[in-house]
Amino acid sequence: MRLPIGFRAGSTRAKIKPSGKPDLGLLVSGTPCSWAFVGTLNRAAAPSVNRGRKLYASGGLLQAIVVNAGNANCATGQAGVEADRRMAELAAVQLGIAPEAVLTGSTGVIGQPLPIEKIAAGLPQIQLGPEIDPFMEAILTTDLVPKMAEAELPGGARVVGICKGSGMIQPNMATMLAYILTDAAVSQAELRQGWKGVIDKSFNQVTVDTDTSTNDMAVLLANGASGEVPLPEFWAAVEGVCVSLARQLARDGEGATKLLTVKVNGALSDEEARKAALAVAASPLWKSAVYGNDPNWGRVMMAIGKSGAHFAVDRVRISLQGIPLYAGRVLEFDRASVSEAMRAEEVIVEVDLAEGEGQGVAWGCDLTEEYVRINALYTT
Amino acid sequence: MRLPIGFRAGSTRAKIKPSGKPDLGLLVSGTPCSWAFVGTLNRAAAPSVNRGRKLYASGGLLQAIVVNAGNANCATGQAGVEADRRMAELAAVQLGIAPEAVLTGSTGVIGQPLPIEKIAAGLPQIQLGPEIDPFMEAILTTDLVPKMAEAELPGGARVVGICKGSGMIQPNMATMLAYILTDAAVSQAELRQGWKGVIDKSFNQVTVDTDTSTNDMAVLLANGASGEVPLPEFWAAVEGVCVSLARQLARDGEGATKLLTVKVNGALSDEEARKAALAVAASPLWKSAVYGNDPNWGRVMMAIGKSGAHFAVDRVRISLQGIPLYAGRVLEFDRASVSEAMRAEEVIVEVDLAEGEGQGVAWGCDLTEEYVRINALYTT
Repeated sequence: MRLPIGFRAGSTRAKIKPSGKPDLGLLVSGTPCSWAFVGTLNRAAAPSVNRGRKLYASGGLLQAIVVNAGNANCATGQAGVEADRRMAELAAVQLGIAPEAVLTGSTGVIGQPLPIEKIAAGLPQIQLGPEIDPFMEAILTTDLVPKMAEAELPGGARVVGICKGSGMIQPNMATMLAYILTDAAVSQAELRQGWKGVIDKSFNQVTVDTDTSTNDMAVLLANGASGEVPLPEFWAAVEGVCVSLARQLARDGEGATKLLTVKVNGALSDEEARKAALAVAASPLWKSAVYGNDPNWGRVMMAIGKSGAHFAVDRVRISLQGIPLYAGRVLEFDRASVSEAMRAEEVIVEVDLAEGEGQGVAWGCDLTEEYVRINALYTT
Repeated sequence: MRLPIGFRAGSTRAKIKPSGKPDLGLLVSGTPCSWAFVGTLNRAAAPSVNRGRKLYASGGLLQAIVVNAGNANCATGQAGVEADRRMAELAAVQLGIAPEAVLTGSTGVIGQPLPIEKIAAGLPQIQLGPEIDPFMEAILTTDLVPKMAEAELPGGARVVGICKGSGMIQPNMATMLAYILTDAAVSQAELRQGWKGVIDKSFNQVTVDTDTSTNDMAVLLANGASGEVPLPEFWAAVEGVCVSLARQLARDGEGATKLLTVKVNGALSDEEARKAALAVAASPLWKSAVYGNDPNWGRVMMAIGKSGAHFAVDRVRISLQGIPLYAGRVLEFDRASVSEAMRAEEVIVEVDLAEGEGQGVAWGCDLTEEYVRINALYTT
């Protein structure tokens, strides 16, 4: 996928991943960018997240991102903090910019020293080009597919987003690694004000396994190369890109065979609707039923019940693949044909809480034996 | 296991379970009991839980418990509420006591009408005896083993507890079905004051899959047949019985091959310690690693990090099977021998948060392909 004007990206094989696949990515804008950032709320946050948070608080502009996969550089002590700082410096020197204009990112196994010498050796080998794909490829871990989305704005500016992540995914005010780039001109203040709202409706509504990562971050960069754009269209485009990435992320959840989309309407507030939707998308019992094409809607009821959202059992409505299963009471339905309808790339659950106007959507995936297999033996 | 003095129990095959196994249990005390109760906080709570909560609020004494398995009688509308009331009435008439002295319980599939005619036909067939085993057997669903524990008090009074549950288990101020009986004389006021504290240290610290059931309840009954006992010893005995049941419950988690015990010390408070311990015991990534005998302690770090408990990555300590893996920094350890040590009936994680004096323990199990298989096809 072509980058927005003024951005270039590339990657190399720095031999951090045992597989020998690309594992070091560099992304640069020709001019400094306004930016917005959210990082994981996990208290064991990695040095890259803590450094990003500090850079963000300082208020400066950003011009480059350097990311490695295969090693999370988390719980690696003072040496890890140093290695993270060094990674930014090495990229800065190579690009001829200030280290404070370089954001770092790391993803992979927790608690192993970051081989900074491999990063030092790898960085000069990176060829920068106009496509984002090589960078995307370099930040994958257990992901099976790259995740990219784009949108075009009035006047020709574009929004291009990528993200990685497949397990350890239940973002909490944060997300996996996601980078959204635009050549639209949008002020730092505007970006910062709007970003969290987009996150809450996209990445924060994705769940693969309820485990909040230590290395999550979602970053939005605007270099202004294509000039100003109407803000409503800008945010709609950013949200569209993020929602597309959120869906791709859920579909590629570890071991997943299908995408699970949960739409909740009629909640007391949008926040309650999102909470209820996420509880259904995260329920291991419902996810197992989705895998087995089993229309066991009682588990949807259980999940909204534990979510804390307000509703009454004798008013709530539940549909599956467009087929009503419960409407304040148990409905008659043909189990075999609903099960057949669940044999699809996407299983859609719709819940009406019948309490108010709040709406929300969450994305997840089914739970399969393969999820267990992938995660029973990841470090060894 | 012999019941405390004055209690009798029995069960029958009422053909509610498709397997034809025992599925209707009745438990009676010769005299009215003081009692304490906690019920699920799931908003889709079943009629049996709502009725129990009302009985409890009324302040009366309890004399009998009638429970069916194979059907949760949840999300079954007004007919379900009626069926639940009828179940209590039928038992009351048979025993010659008031319906308000009879607690109901149901467990099984959600959203299917309770066949009250089968319960009406089954109740008269129940033979009451001095052993709790037939009752225990009748309330099992996906459980592989019965769960019972007992303790003896000074003066000869006894505490006998049973519980069922194997999936949909992350109690929230409540628990699965658990019944604790004693012939000690303990006042209703004392029972009510102490019960929640025991629950918080036992059943509320068990997790199989983070899914909070709609039908959970934990009930403590004292009929006083053996006279008064010293209260500290009484509560110690009750806690010992509940912790034993909690461990049995976790070990019998759906698909589990081993018990996972997580002990957290050094927290700011006991509550933070319990929260951190539960987060580790509930993490699907760590549970998968336990299944694979993979000492991937980074996932323990991630889980305490997401729990919200206070700690610093450069002070926290993590041990596995007694072997220190992390102590404010990554420690050298022999991966193969730690992995070998994990091939045990019980895997014990110890975490020292190095913040204060708070302590807590949680119990869970490993996550296996079998959990997925069991739950992919439960209703069909």
